[in-house]
Parts: sequence; structure tokens; C-alpha cells
Amino acid sequence: MSFTVEERGNLNNPNYRIFFKNADGKYVSPFHDIPMHADEAQNIFHMVVEVPRWTNAKMEIATKDILNPIKQDMKKGKLRYVANVFPYKGYIWNYGAIPQTWEDPAHKDGDTGYYGDNDPIDVCEIGTKVCSRGEVIKVKVLGILAMIDEGETDWKVIAINVDDAEAKELNNIADVKRLKPGYLEATVDWFRRYKVPDGKPENNFAFNGEFKDKDFAIKTIKSTHKFWKALISQQADAGELNCKNTTVSAVDSPNYCSADEAQAVVAATSPSGKEEPIPLSVDQSFYYERK
Amino acid sequence: MSFTVEERGNLNNPNYRIFFKNADGKYVSPFHDIPMHADEAQNIFHMVVEVPRWTNAKMEIATKDILNPIKQDMKKGKLRYVANVFPYKGYIWNYGAIPQTWEDPAHKDGDTGYYGDNDPIDVCEIGTKVCSRGEVIKVKVLGILAMIDEGETDWKVIAINVDDAEAKELNNIADVKRLKPGYLEATVDWFRRYKVPDGKPENNFAFNGEFKDKDFAIKTIKSTHKFWKALISQQADAGELNCKNTTVSAVDSPNYCSADEAQAVVAATSPSGKEEPIPLSVDQSFYYERK
Repeated sequence: MSFTVEERGNLNNPNYRIFFKNADGKYVSPFHDIPMHADEAQNIFHMVVEVPRWTNAKMEIATKDILNPIKQDMKKGKLRYVANVFPYKGYIWNYGAIPQTWEDPAHKDGDTGYYGDNDPIDVCEIGTKVCSRGEVIKVKVLGILAMIDEGETDWKVIAINVDDAEAKELNNIADVKRLKPGYLEATVDWFRRYKVPDGKPENNFAFNGEFKDKDFAIKTIKSTHKFWKALISQQADAGELNCKNTTVSAVDSPNYCSADEAQAVVAATSPSGKEEPIPLSVDQSFYYERK
Repeated sequence: MSFTVEERGNLNNPNYRIFFKNADGKYVSPFHDIPMHADEAQNIFHMVVEVPRWTNAKMEIATKDILNPIKQDMKKGKLRYVANVFPYKGYIWNYGAIPQTWEDPAHKDGDTGYYGDNDPIDVCEIGTKVCSRGEVIKVKVLGILAMIDEGETDWKVIAINVDDAEAKELNNIADVKRLKPGYLEATVDWFRRYKVPDGKPENNFAFNGEFKDKDFAIKTIKSTHKFWKALISQQADAGELNCKNTTVSAVDSPNYCSADEAQAVVAATSPSGKEEPIPLSVDQSFYYERK
């Protein structure tokens, strides 16, 4: 199963969008139409790359927009870029989400004691290749971190691209500790501090910041898939989420989006144009003493 | 005093060159013709940026080539890129050299006990802006680190662009420690380990890896300027170094390069073309346990 992207608008402009198409050339929602599993028997999952490693633009699947394109998050009317918290440069992994998952804000997580953050589950892909924005890759799940962000559960799955040269050697969280010493500690450190330069408090973690293993991670992903199933079948309160899709819901469902409607949605956005420069302030690094 | 650059060849190809011109449009050598001082009374120095922050290509002033353009270092017939030693991405400062300086390989440094490395003195510029390759900036010197690289003295000046928003607050090495905690420790860590992924041993440092202050740094730079003066006036053994220049030596000196000769040198290089892609292997990160 392969997917392509169609860029609209201008990078580093609020009009920027990445729409997704399946192998038939049909527009799809990366939230709802891309299957969670790439290979269910092998526990291989799809991952939608939102933020390539070493970049700063906070790109994400627009869960409240029709067809859920990737777009850049805005804060106080300005495009959002994550700060460089020294010694890190931008995101330190390819960052994205697993499609067909949802952290239900009405569900209190039995493990963390906090409600879901209303997003698909996040993934940190630790392979060598710098992925492209909107790339749909197949990942092997290795473990999971339970971040608590402003009182919400925000799981971070640790995974590796199955096409990575090291993928065969990485089969569980202990392998990451052994083969990439310091990377998991840096991952906790990064998530703890990345919003501090924007005036937010440090984030916290369940399980004292310990990573859970592959089995725990897969169990957690599968539970978020159940919440998504309830969402897409209108058995859970969608709130402001846009659940329109082109391949999952029946034609007579209110969530069904026809090819014509999808075409019109994309056509109504700004045409693809030249990227705009990243503001110079994004190159700043922030330094502070470790506790 | 302002300088412009003329790119030749293709970035990420061995044919890539950056030539320098002065405000009169005359070709100059960045090693010999650009003055060391931008403002002698204020102790402001020129810095030629060879490697922009967060990049990997080992670009340097070609000390043995006529007009000393910037070109990419080669090792075993391949273009050289420094490894990403996790958590760092490429160089962690704008990296370059102070013109009209030379670490004389025939001179045993009184402080370190090792001979010079035959290059102009290196600078780590710690400001916010990511400089461009070949940019000539004015820097305030803050301190210095004495790296010992394979038995040679290789000073690393710590400096800040005078145009940086924080430049006024940074006046000595203690200010860097206070305002950018962790940056100097990371600097030593970076230089200690950056060649290890290429199979080389860790580098060592004089003074137990401690940074010396601004006054010591200026004294050291000035001594390398004296060695350069001896070099350019043929009082020191130039070895393979190319000392041709267009503005410093007298017209009847063997080091003098006429405008016609300079023009012919540039014209003989590959014309400016599209950059080539960086090999995927450059995106790899290397992880290892700290001692």
C-alpha cells in the first residue's frame, strides 16, 4: 500500500497544506483512511511523518479540518516552530503519528491516570534517514513513553523504519538502550523541556519517565485504535474533530466524503507555490542548567 | 571593509570553490588579503566562515591553492563530512578562521608544548545567526581552547559576531558560561569526539580542557599573526602553502598575484552550477557511552 502527497500553498506560510492520495490517486485522510497496520501479523504499523528530524516547524495532521491535511500549528496568530533546546537542533527523531488511532479525551488512561489528548498517537522514529514531510513509512514498534502534557496523557511511541539498515537489530526498547546509548535519555530530556523557551512549564511523565517495552507499546496503540473505531463509527463524541473520509465509512454515512467533495476541498486551498523563508529567530538556541 | 564571494563548481562536488573579492571587486585571498583586525583599537577581528552551524561538510580555506579559495576537504578520495556525534547535529557553532594568522608548524607553542598545525587559527562563533559559507564577519573574542590534534597545537578561539543581539552581554569566557550554560562543555565534548566515528582516537586538550580568557586568546591570536607576517614576508618556511596575494605583497614580490593572474585562476575552475545532493550516510548519528 503506497501513498503520495500533494502540497498546497507555501511552506512557512499559514496557507501550507499537505493532502494525501492513495495508490488509486484518490484523496484520503491520513487520520482515518490510512490503515493503522502495514502488516498486522508482523505488528508493523504505518506512520505518517509530520516533522522531519532536525527541523523545527510544528507540522501536524489537522484533525479538525476536512481530509485532515498536514498543516503548521499556529499559536497566537503566528506559525509555531519548536525551540532549539541546546544541545538539540529541532526534533531529534522523525516525528509523526499512527493513523486510525485516537487518544480519547473522555477516557481516563488506566496506566497514567490522565485523560487522552484528543490526537492520534505520536511516534518518534529513530532511524538514520531523514524522512520527508508527509511520508508514510512502515515502522516496527520498540517501546513507549508516557508523557503528561498539561494534565493530558500524550503517549510517545518509539519505533524504527522497517527499511532502516539497523532495523533487524532493533527489536525492543532494550536494544535501543544498547545500540544508541543516550538517545532515550535525550528523548525524555527533549520532551521535558521543549516548551520551556515558550514560557510553559516542564512536562512530566508517568512511570517516572521510564520507557515501557514493545508489548506494552503495542497494547497501548491497539487501545487507541479501539477509541478511533468508536470515533469513526459515531459511538464516541467527536467534538470538533473532522471524521470525513473517503474509504472507511459507508456511502450513506455522514462521515463519507465523495471524490467530488474531496476534489473541491483541495481546489479551494491556495495553489502550490514557493516556500517562504524560516524566521531568523527559529535559529536561536536556548540554554539552561539541568536540574 | 566588505567582501563578497564568488561560488564556482557544484556544492557537494570536489570541484566546488568559493573565491573572495574585496569592495573594489578585486579577487583576494581570505588567508592573506583580508585584514586580521576589523577594528584594532576595539580588538574586533575578522572571521571567515568556512562551515555554517548545523552543517557537516568540512569546508576550509585551501591554504595550498592559489588565492586560497574555500573548498571541501577530501579524505581517501572522498569529500569529507564530519559525523553527527549524538546529540549534536553537524558543527555546533559557525566555524571558520581568522585571516592573516598562521599556526607555524616549526614553532613549539610555549603554552601547550606542541608545534602548530600549519593553518590559520580556528574560530567557533557562538551567535544566534546561522552564517553563510564564505561570509566575512566581525567578531569579539571571548576566550580560547587549546586542542591537541595528533600531536599538533590547534587553538579554537571562542568568539561572537559583533552584530549578534547578545554581543553586548558577552565580553569574556565567564559570560559564556553564565549565559549559555552547557555550551562550552559541549564544545570540548564535540572536539574530543568528532573524529571517533571516522576511526580516529579522541582528541586531547592542554590546560586540562579549561578555556582561557579573552586576554589570553587575544595574545595567542596576535602571536599567530606574527608567524603569518614572517610567512608572507618569506622569513618563515612556507612549505606547500600558497602565499600569493593581491593586496599585501609588493608588486615585485614572488608572492604578488596580479589581477590578470587572479582572473585566470578563477576562470580555470568549473563554472558555477547546481548543488549536488549530500550523501544519505551524512545523516547518520553516532552514539557512544560517555566515559
